[in-house]
Amino acid sequence: MWSKNKLKWIRSLAIKKFRDAERVFLAEGAKTVADLYGHFPCRMLMATGKFLRSHEDWIADEIIEVSQEQLEQASLQRAPRDVLAVFDIPDNPVPQLCKTEQLVLALDAVQDPGNLGTIIRLADWFGIEDIYCSLDTADAFAPKVVQATMGALARVRVYYVNLMDFLSGLPKDIQVYGTFLDGADIYEQSLEKGGVLIMGNEGNGISAVIESMVSQRLYIPSYPVGRPTAESLNVAVATAVACAEFRRQLVHK
Amino acid sequence: MWSKNKLKWIRSLAIKKFRDAERVFLAEGAKTVADLYGHFPCRMLMATGKFLRSHEDWIADEIIEVSQEQLEQASLQRAPRDVLAVFDIPDNPVPQLCKTEQLVLALDAVQDPGNLGTIIRLADWFGIEDIYCSLDTADAFAPKVVQATMGALARVRVYYVNLMDFLSGLPKDIQVYGTFLDGADIYEQSLEKGGVLIMGNEGNGISAVIESMVSQRLYIPSYPVGRPTAESLNVAVATAVACAEFRRQLVHK
Repeated sequence: MWSKNKLKWIRSLAIKKFRDAERVFLAEGAKTVADLYGHFPCRMLMATGKFLRSHEDWIADEIIEVSQEQLEQASLQRAPRDVLAVFDIPDNPVPQLCKTEQLVLALDAVQDPGNLGTIIRLADWFGIEDIYCSLDTADAFAPKVVQATMGALARVRVYYVNLMDFLSGLPKDIQVYGTFLDGADIYEQSLEKGGVLIMGNEGNGISAVIESMVSQRLYIPSYPVGRPTAESLNVAVATAVACAEFRRQLVHK
Repeated sequence: MWSKNKLKWIRSLAIKKFRDAERVFLAEGAKTVADLYGHFPCRMLMATGKFLRSHEDWIADEIIEVSQEQLEQASLQRAPRDVLAVFDIPDNPVPQLCKTEQLVLALDAVQDPGNLGTIIRLADWFGIEDIYCSLDTADAFAPKVVQATMGALARVRVYYVNLMDFLSGLPKDIQVYGTFLDGADIYEQSLEKGGVLIMGNEGNGISAVIESMVSQRLYIPSYPVGRPTAESLNVAVATAVACAEFRRQLVHK
């Protein structure tokens, strides 16, 4: 049932401390909620009568019918629409990476929620199913990240690990790639089918200690070639261009 | 001199109506301001004494030394640092596109300021100097866009045009590219050195009327190949992957 306390509880999920305590996250909007539903147990569904009538078979611990106005009070979005849902945060055990043909991402302190959400979304597009995040990377279950993933969290698993330990524990035949301003032109490298692609922090790139674990240093060339590049690419953009090139080499080369 | 009215004036520049009336825009932070300085006349510089002493040769209609606290009051950023500047919005005449070897972007109703800023920044990386925006695209001089460009506005020119008129007026030998979910695999197409690459709205893609002007429909393949793609790429990410491929074919093919 709708109550002031429920509203407070929902809005508290903007804060990591409260998400962690309850092990739940918030998703909003018909598309995002529908994409996630069925992939995560649904703790609470709060929606307009119209939405609920067209989703009568949906199951949740609690289903609350609200007016559009009540939905707006609970929502963290500027223009809330139809439904919000609270899902359980999955407790996926961190898998050991042992197959050399699998491409995964490792994020070293990516800070911006929009960037992280965009990276999860593009990982889904390029068939990357696992993302290993350093403990100081943004939280994948923050509302801003969830909304930016556009439902991709249903298919991409995100783990928080000590990145150094994770990389140290990899079998020797797994390539570890990273992008650097002084790396080798990615289009002139023969990329393996799989491996770990590390992407670094927005301001500082890949940290020195993690850099020491990289076996192949890549560079996304700017244009015209040889132009002095004081500038850099946004981390989500760089991730996309690199992932696209891994897949192009696999399929089109 | 510092005053309440000056503070109000600066903060009003968050709103397009006031930017348009004054023909100025706001930039914040030492890096962004330094990148833009010299490219646009500086109407006002508001900075800490420390910043001003290390930039004694800078010229502006008005230079105001402030405390960090005063800077924070004027700033639209969460963590303002050292300096903010008000620059003139350039009055670039819209150039006729006539050289077939020049690659430019056209944006059809890109709405999100973060996406627009990221696109301007990546255009700079890939050596694209001109972006033609539909009149309903986000404003390139909004503070969120300016900050996301990371200084690229100094090198990339953004024009607001009736996109249909712009495309109709192009010489016949200029290719018009667009990305679509049912386009042809971009890696299997022979891309020209130049042309117009149209990118569409976040939710709806390229509008029907603009789509009719596209001469080559491109698709950025997802992976694995042939997977049903209910999903889509973020527009900035798709722009990056497409621009990277134009440049790769030019340099590496």
